[in-house]
Amino acid sequence: MISWQTIQTKLKEIAHLEKILALLSWDQETYMPPAATKSRSEQISFLVGEWHKRICDPWWDEVFTQRETIPDLSSDHKRILEIFKKDREKEVKIPLELATALATAVSEAFQAWQEARSQSDFSLFQPALQKIFDLSLEKAAALGYERENAYDAFLDLHEEGLTQKDFDPLAIEALKVIQKVLHTIQEKSTPPRKDFLSRNYPIEKQQLLCTWILPRIGFDTQRGRLDVSPHPFSTTIALDDVRLTTRYSENDPLGSLYSVLHEAGHGLYEQGFLPQWEDTPLAQAISLGIHESQSRFWENQIGRSMEFLTWLWPEMKRTYNGFLDDVTVEEVFRAVNEVKPSFIRTEADEVTYGLHIIIRYEIEKKLFAGEITLSEAPEVWNSLYTSYLGITPQNAREGILQDVHWSHGSFGYFPTYLLGNLYASQWYAVMGKTLDIPSLVRKGEFQPILEWMRTNIHQHGRRYDAQTLCERISGEPLNVVYFASYLKQRYESVYGISLPL
Amino acid sequence: MISWQTIQTKLKEIAHLEKILALLSWDQETYMPPAATKSRSEQISFLVGEWHKRICDPWWDEVFTQRETIPDLSSDHKRILEIFKKDREKEVKIPLELATALATAVSEAFQAWQEARSQSDFSLFQPALQKIFDLSLEKAAALGYERENAYDAFLDLHEEGLTQKDFDPLAIEALKVIQKVLHTIQEKSTPPRKDFLSRNYPIEKQQLLCTWILPRIGFDTQRGRLDVSPHPFSTTIALDDVRLTTRYSENDPLGSLYSVLHEAGHGLYEQGFLPQWEDTPLAQAISLGIHESQSRFWENQIGRSMEFLTWLWPEMKRTYNGFLDDVTVEEVFRAVNEVKPSFIRTEADEVTYGLHIIIRYEIEKKLFAGEITLSEAPEVWNSLYTSYLGITPQNAREGILQDVHWSHGSFGYFPTYLLGNLYASQWYAVMGKTLDIPSLVRKGEFQPILEWMRTNIHQHGRRYDAQTLCERISGEPLNVVYFASYLKQRYESVYGISLPL
Repeated sequence: MISWQTIQTKLKEIAHLEKILALLSWDQETYMPPAATKSRSEQISFLVGEWHKRICDPWWDEVFTQRETIPDLSSDHKRILEIFKKDREKEVKIPLELATALATAVSEAFQAWQEARSQSDFSLFQPALQKIFDLSLEKAAALGYERENAYDAFLDLHEEGLTQKDFDPLAIEALKVIQKVLHTIQEKSTPPRKDFLSRNYPIEKQQLLCTWILPRIGFDTQRGRLDVSPHPFSTTIALDDVRLTTRYSENDPLGSLYSVLHEAGHGLYEQGFLPQWEDTPLAQAISLGIHESQSRFWENQIGRSMEFLTWLWPEMKRTYNGFLDDVTVEEVFRAVNEVKPSFIRTEADEVTYGLHIIIRYEIEKKLFAGEITLSEAPEVWNSLYTSYLGITPQNAREGILQDVHWSHGSFGYFPTYLLGNLYASQWYAVMGKTLDIPSLVRKGEFQPILEWMRTNIHQHGRRYDAQTLCERISGEPLNVVYFASYLKQRYESVYGISLPL
Repeated sequence: MISWQTIQTKLKEIAHLEKILALLSWDQETYMPPAATKSRSEQISFLVGEWHKRICDPWWDEVFTQRETIPDLSSDHKRILEIFKKDREKEVKIPLELATALATAVSEAFQAWQEARSQSDFSLFQPALQKIFDLSLEKAAALGYERENAYDAFLDLHEEGLTQKDFDPLAIEALKVIQKVLHTIQEKSTPPRKDFLSRNYPIEKQQLLCTWILPRIGFDTQRGRLDVSPHPFSTTIALDDVRLTTRYSENDPLGSLYSVLHEAGHGLYEQGFLPQWEDTPLAQAISLGIHESQSRFWENQIGRSMEFLTWLWPEMKRTYNGFLDDVTVEEVFRAVNEVKPSFIRTEADEVTYGLHIIIRYEIEKKLFAGEITLSEAPEVWNSLYTSYLGITPQNAREGILQDVHWSHGSFGYFPTYLLGNLYASQWYAVMGKTLDIPSLVRKGEFQPILEWMRTNIHQHGRRYDAQTLCERISGEPLNVVYFASYLKQRYESVYGISLPL
């Protein structure tokens, strides 16, 4: 007898497995002893198997068939089933042999990528990557896509509903805006002072500053925590257990500060779901792009603003006592907003960041369209860097091998990073109509800003898809206009120049 | 078709669940955000349910029935099945309603105990404890026991095969030995110097010392780690992932040192199982008593010896530079071995420790025999303290409410602590026949000592039961003679007196 209660029980089992898996991965990245890799991967495989079994349980087909006759289903319940059905189809459509073959290929490719990266030799990665790529084409076919665009299947996996047709105009427009900003800055400005960034900032003091900031921007440390890991990330073990990580480097105090703000943005989103919907899609993030809009917003729109730094400045000086006596907050503002072409995406400033994304997007498109082969990819990569950023990678490590995503089979992931930047700017513009953001930030009053996010975005979970949410909030689809106006405002102020936008 | 492979697959699933549960609990005690208690207990319940389902799977009955006809079962495999069958029966015999009622009662009793303890009022705990106790009698009946001794069912749960009939003579003999030692020390000795223990020992330095020691006594930090928790414990997430915790207090540097040595003893045992038997009983501890023999051995026989302290002394002085300039290592030796009656078991010295165990054992026996009621227990408790230790608890918090075990329904647990001390002494005596322990320890050469444990105890897992192992190692059953001779040797040296043993 199918009822909301039986559905909920099954959803909860799936959610428990996902949460426990999140803990296993968090532990693996933070505290797990080095020799435990093998036993941990066995534990994870076991739980993934249990999860997969429950997702693919044919009982769900009955639920979807009988949906109209199940008693007492509210519209919320129906929306939950609708989302779950879509998610589930993406799992069910992949034949078990393909999933297994991909898992094996990924595990081999990850090792090959590490080796290739350490030797800066793409050819060591290429055969393993080719295997993943071929299997990924099969996966795209299994998932299904319209016309010839196999890549769309992968875009959809990371940003539901996204197609090349949607993303192309955004990428083209963003490219224009970024290049205008970049070229003007390169022509008309002088580099900011940065000597004070390479001083020795003790890690315990960086930690103190980060943990001082977190509760002040609204991150609930009773329901979350901050740890250290080689690659910063955030993860949700339960709505009351949201964990962030960062890394600390003695001579990069701003690296830890901005990675904490970034991850806190993700964490604030997860802490903002409604507890009554825990373990259902109504307490889940809409998409990677929307998630990234939260992290980018707190990192850039808020965290790199002059007002934020002015608010933080006394505490920063107190923490690093003496270290900053010869520095002004304006100099810090200019240093954290320096625009300068560089090779590594994760270290890029917020203007050139988009170029890294667009380059990988263009290459992935060409690969899936069969316009280039994998062996040609490094050359295309390098020439795109030369053309968009004016710099040419000297080796594959600082070029095409820099990111882990391909070794995971995560094609189509990068566009969500650019979407995050665009959404963040659009939210910032709309929020600015009802809130005096600079003045609130200047006083450290982040509550109204967080409330706005809670009300407009967090509380809905996946009730609306990204497009609908965007229209609800801003009255128009996602576009590059707000990104442009945000960049204009920020960088005219940083560099004291006029930007032609 | 039943084969060793199908059996192993099912055993592995059960083991994965146990390991993942161990991680969930470890995380709960160490890093979990405070507000996550509820979601964590849901995750744990879910996994316990999955575990229970697999343990009780009727498929196992078929396995046991067909045992003789399963092809290619080695004698090791047969031993594994024999042990698993016994373990499983203890689960299967408890009716689900009883298990559920006990789980509910325990969760209520734990809260009641915390409240009662904080108010030092046994009557606040008594009703909840009575409920657990009544259900425990039902549980004993379900498990089965001989003659009238329901308590035996609980002894067996914590130390397989242990009965009152076995333990009584050990307890009586140990009581005699302890009282002789205690009374002689009380009559003939003067208290050691202890002023230096209450100085301020920075926690980071205590941590440095503890992590310096661990690899030196053989704890593999690639396959394990040390963290902080309110109550020190050790847990095994995999044979390659053995975790210890301790707690630090600024003016109790020896508290952290000895709790680390104690937990490391547990951890060394778990790291010593053979990897090829992982996920079977042949890579599990025999019993709580044997486990405790390992922790006690490293904490007391080794860790509190003059030779250990002499070896550690230069590092200790280096770590606490300046702090110990007016102290001699002999003074430290006497301080860490002070014998003095006190109320709290976990803070007791190694001589009076046994009295705390014997008192609770006697009370539990009387309760299960119906000789006293729960309401009479606090009075019996106090009068036994007066009679055995010569001190009378002034309140229930330093008396009958001090330990959590009863609130968990863990009756019959305490005797394993005394068994641990007795076994440790017996191993020490036998080991001493082939190894010059004092001289090895003096030089910090712990490898032969650990090797002895590995060869004689660790590598066997549960191949032998505790009694058989003891006879194999020492040629005789467990007895109090070695405990007596160890105490005589140690405390004559500590106090410079002659002990009548």
